Amino acid sequence: MTDELREEVELKFDLIAFDADDTLWHNETLYTSAQDKLRELLSGYADGETVAQRLYQTEMSNLQYYGYGIKSFTLSMIETAVELTRGKIEGSEVLKIIGFAKEMLTSEVQLFEHTEETVCELARSYELMMITKGDLLDQQSKLSRSGLGDCFRYVEVVSQKTQRTYEALLARHGIEPQRFLMVGNSLKSDILPVLALGGYAVYIPYHTTWAHEVVDSQLIGHDGHYELEHLGQLPRLIEQIRSVQ
Amino acid sequence: MTDELREEVELKFDLIAFDADDTLWHNETLYTSAQDKLRELLSGYADGETVAQRLYQTEMSNLQYYGYGIKSFTLSMIETAVELTRGKIEGSEVLKIIGFAKEMLTSEVQLFEHTEETVCELARSYELMMITKGDLLDQQSKLSRSGLGDCFRYVEVVSQKTQRTYEALLARHGIEPQRFLMVGNSLKSDILPVLALGGYAVYIPYHTTWAHEVVDSQLIGHDGHYELEHLGQLPRLIEQIRSVQ
Repeated sequence: MTDELREEVELKFDLIAFDADDTLWHNETLYTSAQDKLRELLSGYADGETVAQRLYQTEMSNLQYYGYGIKSFTLSMIETAVELTRGKIEGSEVLKIIGFAKEMLTSEVQLFEHTEETVCELARSYELMMITKGDLLDQQSKLSRSGLGDCFRYVEVVSQKTQRTYEALLARHGIEPQRFLMVGNSLKSDILPVLALGGYAVYIPYHTTWAHEVVDSQLIGHDGHYELEHLGQLPRLIEQIRSVQ
Repeated sequence: MTDELREEVELKFDLIAFDADDTLWHNETLYTSAQDKLRELLSGYADGETVAQRLYQTEMSNLQYYGYGIKSFTLSMIETAVELTRGKIEGSEVLKIIGFAKEMLTSEVQLFEHTEETVCELARSYELMMITKGDLLDQQSKLSRSGLGDCFRYVEVVSQKTQRTYEALLARHGIEPQRFLMVGNSLKSDILPVLALGGYAVYIPYHTTWAHEVVDSQLIGHDGHYELEHLGQLPRLIEQIRSVQ
């Protein structure tokens, strides 16, 4: 066996990429907690359901201007608060909302149970990339606070995750889609665009809704598409993918 | 002459990078115009000078949380307004400030006089990169609105521009600093870190304060450091650098 062939057998992927928020660490909890505080703050003006709905509408209509991330979310919270109070919101309440933002931006990064061991183990054999939407500074800061910074060779903060985003990114790094594996919790952003390119994608839902315990990876109907319950199962799945080639 | 030697003579640089805001297009004007509107809005509470000073202080102390960009600036404008009005700001006034932000984010991109011709001309011979701080989505959107998108092979939005930033960026693209030229309007962010790495840097001050007309490039005391009055002089400078090698 030549060295080249051996390498081909040993490493199935040239690059393994991870979504970050709600894939490596908790993120949604930050937003729901801030939203709970906003409901509380506005409880004299509107019921919780109305606050949640109006905030979501405002966020969606502001996406074109602001994109994703905590600063965008905060500007939408402020706008929602002004509108739901019919302009009666007080300055001190506006400052409180800004305070929610600063709290979110500096809060401890809560890794999922298996993140650290899995990422460190894979980093020994593979080049790892983090691909995430959101604010550049905030994502870099979270990676740094997470202690995982050294495991990721590349960090890509993108404004959206479409097929074209991945295509451009892989081209820039000189990676064939067939040698690329993406791991994430969003079918729309992390899985489908990568499969469409001919890459591999591992879907790990954030809140597992399965009624029964699933012990191993499942193949669900599409070449290159796998689903796992948690990140700790990833090294073994990669081993399995390699062994059936 | 071998092909290799000829190429060496023909192209002095493997990569030419440009700062964007106030190097390729007007940007500071957007901020000063928004600041003027804020002074006007708060004129019943504080004089213009106080508004400007307080806003600057707020921006500086928020930089660690928010980083650069329009959304950060807007959150700081809102915070400043609440504080200067001692909480008496009205909801409708907060919405006005949010309106300033949306205006900034969608305003027409005003290219400098020589930007388009220079960038297009250089793009024919060199790989060009845009390196800029700020919001990812906003910078991508401005590049797209500017019509220059096709001229830049690479776009890098970074959270800061230190020597380490440039070092990592060049390493990632496999570029030797000696084969790299950076063009920008900030000595601190665009020029000094690149010179420290051994690269070339062209400083084009945003507001030219020179009393006399300067017809050509000036070499100011440091190898690899050049200063120009406007971008239109850049192709000729690059030709000069090449010819003295």
